[in-house]
Amino acid sequence: MDNKELRIGVVGVGAIGRTHIERINDQLQGGRVIACSDVNTEFGKKVAENYGCTFYEDGEEMIASGDIDAVIVTTIDPYHEQYVMAAIKAGIYVFCEKPLAPEAEACKRIVEAEISGGKQLVQVGFMRRYDQGYRQLKEAIKNRTYGEPLLLHCAHRNPAVDESYDTPMAVENSMIHEIDVLRWLLDEDYDTAEVVFAKNTRRTHANLMDPQIMILTTKSGVRIDVEAFVNTGHCYDIKCEVCCEDAILNLPEPSNIEVCANAVRGHAIHSDWSTRFVDAYNVEIQEWINSTKEGRVDGPTAWDGYVGQVTAKAASKARDNQTVVKIEMEEKPDFYN
Amino acid sequence: MDNKELRIGVVGVGAIGRTHIERINDQLQGGRVIACSDVNTEFGKKVAENYGCTFYEDGEEMIASGDIDAVIVTTIDPYHEQYVMAAIKAGIYVFCEKPLAPEAEACKRIVEAEISGGKQLVQVGFMRRYDQGYRQLKEAIKNRTYGEPLLLHCAHRNPAVDESYDTPMAVENSMIHEIDVLRWLLDEDYDTAEVVFAKNTRRTHANLMDPQIMILTTKSGVRIDVEAFVNTGHCYDIKCEVCCEDAILNLPEPSNIEVCANAVRGHAIHSDWSTRFVDAYNVEIQEWINSTKEGRVDGPTAWDGYVGQVTAKAASKARDNQTVVKIEMEEKPDFYN
Amino acid sequence: MDNKELRIGVVGVGAIGRTHIERINDQLQGGRVIACSDVNTEFGKKVAENYGCTFYEDGEEMIASGDIDAVIVTTIDPYHEQYVMAAIKAGIYVFCEKPLAPEAEACKRIVEAEISGGKQLVQVGFMRRYDQGYRQLKEAIKNRTYGEPLLLHCAHRNPAVDESYDTPMAVENSMIHEIDVLRWLLDEDYDTAEVVFAKNTRRTHANLMDPQIMILTTKSGVRIDVEAFVNTGHCYDIKCEVCCEDAILNLPEPSNIEVCANAVRGHAIHSDWSTRFVDAYNVEIQEWINSTKEGRVDGPTAWDGYVGQVTAKAASKARDNQTVVKIEMEEKPDFYN
Amino acid sequence: MDNKELRIGVVGVGAIGRTHIERINDQLQGGRVIACSDVNTEFGKKVAENYGCTFYEDGEEMIASGDIDAVIVTTIDPYHEQYVMAAIKAGIYVFCEKPLAPEAEACKRIVEAEISGGKQLVQVGFMRRYDQGYRQLKEAIKNRTYGEPLLLHCAHRNPAVDESYDTPMAVENSMIHEIDVLRWLLDEDYDTAEVVFAKNTRRTHANLMDPQIMILTTKSGVRIDVEAFVNTGHCYDIKCEVCCEDAILNLPEPSNIEVCANAVRGHAIHSDWSTRFVDAYNVEIQEWINSTKEGRVDGPTAWDGYVGQVTAKAASKARDNQTVVKIEMEEKPDFYN
Repeated sequence: MDNKELRIGVVGVGAIGRTHIERINDQLQGGRVIACSDVNTEFGKKVAENYGCTFYEDGEEMIASGDIDAVIVTTIDPYHEQYVMAAIKAGIYVFCEKPLAPEAEACKRIVEAEISGGKQLVQVGFMRRYDQGYRQLKEAIKNRTYGEPLLLHCAHRNPAVDESYDTPMAVENSMIHEIDVLRWLLDEDYDTAEVVFAKNTRRTHANLMDPQIMILTTKSGVRIDVEAFVNTGHCYDIKCEVCCEDAILNLPEPSNIEVCANAVRGHAIHSDWSTRFVDAYNVEIQEWINSTKEGRVDGPTAWDGYVGQVTAKAASKARDNQTVVKIEMEEKPDFYN
Repeated sequence: MDNKELRIGVVGVGAIGRTHIERINDQLQGGRVIACSDVNTEFGKKVAENYGCTFYEDGEEMIASGDIDAVIVTTIDPYHEQYVMAAIKAGIYVFCEKPLAPEAEACKRIVEAEISGGKQLVQVGFMRRYDQGYRQLKEAIKNRTYGEPLLLHCAHRNPAVDESYDTPMAVENSMIHEIDVLRWLLDEDYDTAEVVFAKNTRRTHANLMDPQIMILTTKSGVRIDVEAFVNTGHCYDIKCEVCCEDAILNLPEPSNIEVCANAVRGHAIHSDWSTRFVDAYNVEIQEWINSTKEGRVDGPTAWDGYVGQVTAKAASKARDNQTVVKIEMEEKPDFYN
Repeated sequence: MDNKELRIGVVGVGAIGRTHIERINDQLQGGRVIACSDVNTEFGKKVAENYGCTFYEDGEEMIASGDIDAVIVTTIDPYHEQYVMAAIKAGIYVFCEKPLAPEAEACKRIVEAEISGGKQLVQVGFMRRYDQGYRQLKEAIKNRTYGEPLLLHCAHRNPAVDESYDTPMAVENSMIHEIDVLRWLLDEDYDTAEVVFAKNTRRTHANLMDPQIMILTTKSGVRIDVEAFVNTGHCYDIKCEVCCEDAILNLPEPSNIEVCANAVRGHAIHSDWSTRFVDAYNVEIQEWINSTKEGRVDGPTAWDGYVGQVTAKAASKARDNQTVVKIEMEEKPDFYN
Repeated sequence: MDNKELRIGVVGVGAIGRTHIERINDQLQGGRVIACSDVNTEFGKKVAENYGCTFYEDGEEMIASGDIDAVIVTTIDPYHEQYVMAAIKAGIYVFCEKPLAPEAEACKRIVEAEISGGKQLVQVGFMRRYDQGYRQLKEAIKNRTYGEPLLLHCAHRNPAVDESYDTPMAVENSMIHEIDVLRWLLDEDYDTAEVVFAKNTRRTHANLMDPQIMILTTKSGVRIDVEAFVNTGHCYDIKCEVCCEDAILNLPEPSNIEVCANAVRGHAIHSDWSTRFVDAYNVEIQEWINSTKEGRVDGPTAWDGYVGQVTAKAASKARDNQTVVKIEMEEKPDFYN
């Protein structure tokens, strides 16, 4: 293993990008963010100065400069493709926040470029695979400790969203995480997608059906339902129940003190998304740094990013047409095995 | 209130019938089983002798005899109609174990006969309405303590069933309980029914898809999913999660001691259906005795029994055709308001 | 078993007495309260009329009348002895609410009278032995399912007490229940008692140390600590943790729905003593009626009442002297085996 | 803040020492172990080679060399004083695993040397202060969110110990952690100590009373009981229940998936000490590195180490004499405020 620090550049220094800079420079091991870029030059320069990085007006220039060993792409979604492609072209490792790209075709182009380049370089930021609870579920399922998984009942609950969050975003922004992690949990591909509505909460607005339920089936017949309820009013609550042949498994509750007051005995749960997966983000980036230094991609690949988008599109089509849509995917290339 | 003991007759003294005789005579107040009948005369006579009842070879004769004030019908399902009709004709109160009758048309005939008779006499044995946990949920929903209910996620899990339990029975024998109690919980009628399959457990047999999921929607748009998993291998586990606008509610766990042994901290759950609802059965029959003595029907009515069967048939049709079926019901007669 | 209803009289028709009349007449089987007595004649007559009982101005007269088969003593504590003695003299069964008598000597006189009478007639109202949770603990301990019990950690928490509740009452009124049920759980006698104080809650008053801790040891060396905290401000919470050689056991939580609201996931606990043990009271009185009709005393005996008071007195002496006191008890007479 | 890596030396490279080297070099930020020493030269050289450190035959030489900025002392307990003193003399920061020194007098000498040196340099390895659960309790208590703390009920349970673990070690090795963290939780000093025994588990051996209970009281009257049960047979289980005026608080359960199998619903708990506090150790050492680079001691001080040993000695004396012992401590020097 190469003991030198991985020299990392970050394209897009909004909130997510800056949290990655901070965790890499202040908490994690083996890497340092030495360069950054942002379409907003003035803002980007201030950020660079704050973190002691070199500022590049042009992200592609930074990627091709030879001054960084790896790049993190945290621009707004439509620009992911541009910078991931630049990284592939430059032959450097790239961590791209989800989604790999908004459109499935863009994801496919990235996959093809990566295969052409002959070397896996791309990791997509689906951090739930790094959550301790999901990892325990994965272990139990992988080892078939409790027999075959048959059904999954999941929930993705948010305190509130603003008016810019509309009906499609429940699938494409929120449940995209379930789309990836559940396929990884079960280690098999999806077959169909469906999205149905229920009664709306009074808290939602005209452009948002809330809650929604996404139903996925897998090739072997496992059935998954995911409730997205983004205006609960109070909690960020992630549920994943796996009904296996010999046991019912559930993600753990947050590890908070138990309080018995006001004749109620309970514990606090998360009230914001940022606290729920903070450890998972740290593990994710640390493992990315480690595997990058070892010349490997260990996490969600460009192919996983592509599958995620194809599935999300199928689900959106199912939602728009209120029908069940079959998920059409090519065979996974050997390149990704 | 009439303080004299209610003189009760039981038609059909199989296991369920005998548990009712025992609970009425040995545990509950205000009633006594003084007569019984069974198609199997020899067997019925022994039972009668054991419990100190008068044996009637003919159940209808017992009902019409004037010797009993009320009758409990616990014959096999196809004979429920005959004896309920006899009770209506005789003008005495009747508690009929679910289902009111296997066929919706039979239920309808009973409803029409009861209306013609001009007096509510029929109660159907949907005991979950008497379970303390469901009653707490009912209270919270009725008072809109946590806003409107939007989604329900339920599960009906069994340790094992034998080869005689086939695919239709998941709806018609098991989830018929959910069909009744959830309609009562939400206090509104169903709109559509759907039944889907998942991957089968290795424990099931050729004539049984297991697990199954029944999906019901209500007129106001609440969406309900019920998992029936009847060969879990180990547990009898009933789950009811109600997602309201301001809170997520769940039925309580069984009240068993907590044991921390073998590096696991947990509690026993039910391993048999009979222990899960034993208190509910007692409350159900006691409240039936009480209301009967007060000249009222307080529990699930013949109309509720009819609605239950119509819903079950719609769900079965949905299952057989793998489609969503609209539940067609007439308006509830004022008689039942 | 004698199928005729047990004719019961109640001496002392305050709140506790009236709840027993109601549960016997309206809920339980096999008995009826047909007579009552109270030192407050005017009040007692109204109660008698309300419940359809015959009123006796003189409780001892009621007991000796031959009109009742059994008597329940729910007078204030100092009068328990008088009426229990009267019942023994009349040779009828008596259920006496705890304490059997305030003074250990009075309990001893009752024991001696009962032995002289040659027949066990007395049961004392320690209802926790009839609580489902304690009964599960008892089963596990009796069968040594988890090895020997070594330590118990218990708590007896109350929302609030008024100014008349003083320091001695924590032992003599509240923890007297633990004194009885833990001896029954472990099925062995106590060796020493100790009572210590901690910091006082701001909610207490000048005459009440709150919380207090009572420490009991058994002859075989098991050590028990009981926290009495009677001004918690909000909850009635009973804890019993049994540390065995192979497992840690705990009483179950109250069986209430789980609510996830305001970013807290929990369940309501009892806020009043009356709801916590309501089932235990019903089981207790029903089993007393049943065993009385069978000519047996099955529950806590006069000896158990005597042991309870001796232990409470030793604990009080320990508290007053702030020392460890050895509990001196005679050998249990064969009469009680 | 100084951005250069802290150059750290480790004296004593047994198991604990090596875990610190690994976490500092591979997981944490801002420091690097560049040197080590061990009394076993041959062994120490191999370790040094394995971790890429310079080996010093003489630990004091390493400390005085000027080649390290800070030192971690993980020798066996009797040698802690020697190396901590050397660090104070050399004016470099020192992290000393608990206990600061086995004898209270040795701790006192260290305190006096540190005060003479004029600068706080010493941190003691009480890692529980860095556990997320304990930190949540600390927050609630510090803010008096639930009123004053009145009583604590704690437990320190182990799967098994070998024959070398004798009666005094329950206080001096195991409950020494409770001695430190509970004083930190309550932010006040102890008044008295007591150690009592219960019935022994069959799993213990002739030289070990197991379980034991240590009772501490604080100056303001809070009463703490700690159960040490080191041969539970299966679990590593840490309990801390804080009874405040307005609420009962408890440490969280380990964050493991819930499994419902074999008719039991529960979650795995720790079966080994190493997994329970692994995060706390990481946070502890990271915060030590951070504060050391900022020229501060933020964690448990030499004074805390001294208080810990005085308390442990008082508890041991109490245990040996089976009496309550008053804990005599000098006033905390301003130096440590």
